[in-house]
Amino acid sequence: MNFSSKLLENAVAEFARLPGVGQKTALRLVLHLLNQNKQEVEQFSHAITKLRNEIQFCTRCHNISDTSICEICSSHKRDASVICVVEDTRDVMAIENTSQFNGLYHVLGGLISPMDGIGPSDLQVDSLVERLKDGEVREVIFALSATMEGDTTIFYLHKKLKHFNINISTIARGIAFGGELEYVDEITLGRSIVTRVPYENSLTK
Amino acid sequence: MNFSSKLLENAVAEFARLPGVGQKTALRLVLHLLNQNKQEVEQFSHAITKLRNEIQFCTRCHNISDTSICEICSSHKRDASVICVVEDTRDVMAIENTSQFNGLYHVLGGLISPMDGIGPSDLQVDSLVERLKDGEVREVIFALSATMEGDTTIFYLHKKLKHFNINISTIARGIAFGGELEYVDEITLGRSIVTRVPYENSLTK
Repeated sequence: MNFSSKLLENAVAEFARLPGVGQKTALRLVLHLLNQNKQEVEQFSHAITKLRNEIQFCTRCHNISDTSICEICSSHKRDASVICVVEDTRDVMAIENTSQFNGLYHVLGGLISPMDGIGPSDLQVDSLVERLKDGEVREVIFALSATMEGDTTIFYLHKKLKHFNINISTIARGIAFGGELEYVDEITLGRSIVTRVPYENSLTK
Repeated sequence: MNFSSKLLENAVAEFARLPGVGQKTALRLVLHLLNQNKQEVEQFSHAITKLRNEIQFCTRCHNISDTSICEICSSHKRDASVICVVEDTRDVMAIENTSQFNGLYHVLGGLISPMDGIGPSDLQVDSLVERLKDGEVREVIFALSATMEGDTTIFYLHKKLKHFNINISTIARGIAFGGELEYVDEITLGRSIVTRVPYENSLTK
């Protein structure tokens, strides 16, 4: 693209580095900001730098937080004997939205992925092991993506955690609610037959 | 969405105000920035505020520019007797990319749209009339979108400009190159028959 202004070109280049944003979308976003008044644009960029400079991570569960211990970890209403292990803060938000889980979380900060050069030492694994040592935790639930990376991570963590006297579980895999059988892939369908559940347990409450 | 951090929520809200960016996309973009180092994020927000605070518009054609007269207007290689009227800077870029036009531009800064409360006084109309007064301009080409707003704007401008001794033209409308006839809408197809061109003129050079 030929830009009529270097300033415009720089701003578009910065936007185009965001994931899923191409040159054309970046230009559209930048021209939108250019139509806003200066104060609003200032507010936009301030929110971003402030976030990056002042963000904290909960020292227990490593979720994004404004305080050193996050709201969930410091809440007395949560069941501290169950820890749900997730990849990142989006998964915490997704599970919180279901209102079906009342335990604590542990945010790994990624998944083991040799292709991307991410090994166990890049994740919050040691602190998870540490949290299990005082014997208060009864169950660890793995809520990781059903991908190669997710499975590898579960396999690794399971080996690390199995000598503790705790239940280790993973979230159920199967066909989604509203899913039509003929469109489900064969691996999912096959596994959903093998791991079938008694009818009474399958009813949503 | 339940955010675990107010800072995160603010940043996501700012991103979600951009056109075509919803809450989920905003969150993805913000988490991406959070993974960058501080310097890169600083650079990102600096590029935006710098653009908004220092941007200039060419005093002749009103295109975005770093100088008071833009590169195109100040170039001696351009044909100053032809002015192409466009909506915004994106259209200038699109036409420049074709390499088929060597005249100057006039950026209106929008289209007449009563529904959005945009009237002729919000556009750079007077300065266009002013540019025609010295008699150097021979032709004005309207390169506006083929929408209701574009047509209304052309109709208005035509009335304003017709007493000048100049040719007034609009870019051709018809079926696109590579377009299959059966998928073309009937208005476009009908007009493309009425405004048919001699075969020799239709060949791309």
